[in-house]
Amino acid sequence: MVETFDILAISGSLRKGSFNTALLRNAQALAPAGTTITILEHRDLPLYDGDLEASAYPAAATRIKERVRAAEALLFAVPEYNYSVPGVLKNLLDWVSRPYGQSGWAGKVAGILGTGGGLGTVRAQTHFRQIAHGLDIHVLRQPEIYIANAATKFDAEGNLTDETARKMIATMLTGLHTAVQTH
Amino acid sequence: MVETFDILAISGSLRKGSFNTALLRNAQALAPAGTTITILEHRDLPLYDGDLEASAYPAAATRIKERVRAAEALLFAVPEYNYSVPGVLKNLLDWVSRPYGQSGWAGKVAGILGTGGGLGTVRAQTHFRQIAHGLDIHVLRQPEIYIANAATKFDAEGNLTDETARKMIATMLTGLHTAVQTH
Amino acid sequence: MVETFDILAISGSLRKGSFNTALLRNAQALAPAGTTITILEHRDLPLYDGDLEASAYPAAATRIKERVRAAEALLFAVPEYNYSVPGVLKNLLDWVSRPYGQSGWAGKVAGILGTGGGLGTVRAQTHFRQIAHGLDIHVLRQPEIYIANAATKFDAEGNLTDETARKMIATMLTGLHTAVQTH
Amino acid sequence: MVETFDILAISGSLRKGSFNTALLRNAQALAPAGTTITILEHRDLPLYDGDLEASAYPAAATRIKERVRAAEALLFAVPEYNYSVPGVLKNLLDWVSRPYGQSGWAGKVAGILGTGGGLGTVRAQTHFRQIAHGLDIHVLRQPEIYIANAATKFDAEGNLTDETARKMIATMLTGLHTAVQTH
Repeated sequence: MVETFDILAISGSLRKGSFNTALLRNAQALAPAGTTITILEHRDLPLYDGDLEASAYPAAATRIKERVRAAEALLFAVPEYNYSVPGVLKNLLDWVSRPYGQSGWAGKVAGILGTGGGLGTVRAQTHFRQIAHGLDIHVLRQPEIYIANAATKFDAEGNLTDETARKMIATMLTGLHTAVQTH
Repeated sequence: MVETFDILAISGSLRKGSFNTALLRNAQALAPAGTTITILEHRDLPLYDGDLEASAYPAAATRIKERVRAAEALLFAVPEYNYSVPGVLKNLLDWVSRPYGQSGWAGKVAGILGTGGGLGTVRAQTHFRQIAHGLDIHVLRQPEIYIANAATKFDAEGNLTDETARKMIATMLTGLHTAVQTH
Repeated sequence: MVETFDILAISGSLRKGSFNTALLRNAQALAPAGTTITILEHRDLPLYDGDLEASAYPAAATRIKERVRAAEALLFAVPEYNYSVPGVLKNLLDWVSRPYGQSGWAGKVAGILGTGGGLGTVRAQTHFRQIAHGLDIHVLRQPEIYIANAATKFDAEGNLTDETARKMIATMLTGLHTAVQTH
Repeated sequence: MVETFDILAISGSLRKGSFNTALLRNAQALAPAGTTITILEHRDLPLYDGDLEASAYPAAATRIKERVRAAEALLFAVPEYNYSVPGVLKNLLDWVSRPYGQSGWAGKVAGILGTGGGLGTVRAQTHFRQIAHGLDIHVLRQPEIYIANAATKFDAEGNLTDETARKMIATMLTGLHTAVQTH
């Protein structure tokens, strides 16, 4: 019998060639035996609207919330758009937090990482940590993974070639496992 | 001939009964002669996706960007969702900032206000100011309008009954006019 | 034999009549049997100076660092000065974090609370949480204690009269005990 | 007759070999004809204490406040200590903001820059901007100067050798002049 550790990975970018989504694929390749990382599809979410929530909670939000709850840990790739998290990612966080008292996020353990310009998405990740506080998502304190200058850190096939970053991601995956076991 | 001052108002909530959208309607009623405030419709925006931007920039984003550019000043009602700005609002900010180099926000003068729980959306407004820095939106430093305990501040018709808040909104509208003239 | 739980309380204000320091005295009175709360004296700290650190690490900083390390948990009263933590408090945090690799803060469990104007020091506490992340201080996620309008919440003897706030402080003290035991 | 433009420069570090203070000396060398940059001495400030403020406002605080008021613009070098501004710098900001209603900062135009580890003090500068909002210091939106990996950017005499950074500082000095003239 094989025990597995189930991580749900969520990218803040919908772009197919996104370096941040590529980070999640690299995390899949770096995962130790027994750890599976599934990348969430979430482009079918509508914009959050409290009237819609009350009248017809979207099937996509239900599906995602159930998947979040089933996961043992979460891994967020956080791009920086305009000094903060993408609206797309915040919209997903908002939907799954609703309705009041039925959030899917409460108590989940998560790692976050990101790649972008010269600052490696640190402003977006800082906002993400504040939002996570509000959502009761327990983000690992360390490692913090800010991969600057994304375009220079991947090969043509999307493999992350920066050895320091690869090691930090491996450390994060191990850290998630430890955090879940000791939670 | 009458000169008018054209303010475009943008609510971060899509809910019809939103107290934040109600603030914008109250601002319309409080506007001095010659100032017109139009509340933007933006529920038809899709989620931001870089591939969509490259292949078929959405008509809704084009329409909103042109409306933003035409406006003399902006007024944002900023709800607080999970300690930050709503994903819906950030998604709108993201779309209108794109493509790179063709942002609709650069140099626009704006006021922000919000109403919510015990803290009056201060965390969301703080994030908004950081995002606005990234977007080169020139947010008025003062007044800061944090209307706590929204449910107690409006009558059944949605009229803002808090006199202090009403005066601050009037001050903000005057401040926007002054800022645009001296910009 | 009596087991005791030793909390070190640190106020960000040096003013004798400080409402924030008063919160810590109220916490002392609210502490359950077996919990002792000591309020730290720290007015003899100099301003942080790397040259001083290298040549003559101050006795006050040594004393405080040893006291921090000996404590089982920390309780910070965080006033808001100019939308952030007081320089006095940040200076203390800086000294005890030094020299590099010999921080006194790493892994400490802490609660934070504050009282001030209309927003209850939320901006300062938000900054404090970010600083605590850098220092590896493990701040309780909940409760968050933002006591607005300080002047109306205490009697003439400095007793906190707001029952909700009193209960939240009691909850925080219990939460610190639980966190330390399960850490 | 020669008109001069008087900038007061304030470093957040007291260490003699500070790279951030070195940035200010480099700014002096980069200043165009007619612009003088004076680096403020502030190590004699005590820790802020409201009782001291009420009983014997410190001569050092008075001297600094008058110097701030006399300056036409300010230039802050902002190191990052523990993900925020140094306590030393915040303490100075706090003193000069007091007593209530007699702040020395209100309406001053300022530039900020910093050098440090891999992120160039961006977290500290972000906090600084929020504090500046509270103090009504008008910080230039651009340029933003985050000089990463300080140790590699100066020669043995403390000259900043990074050409991009040098140009950004020159742009900031020009920007301060323009901002003051159009303020």
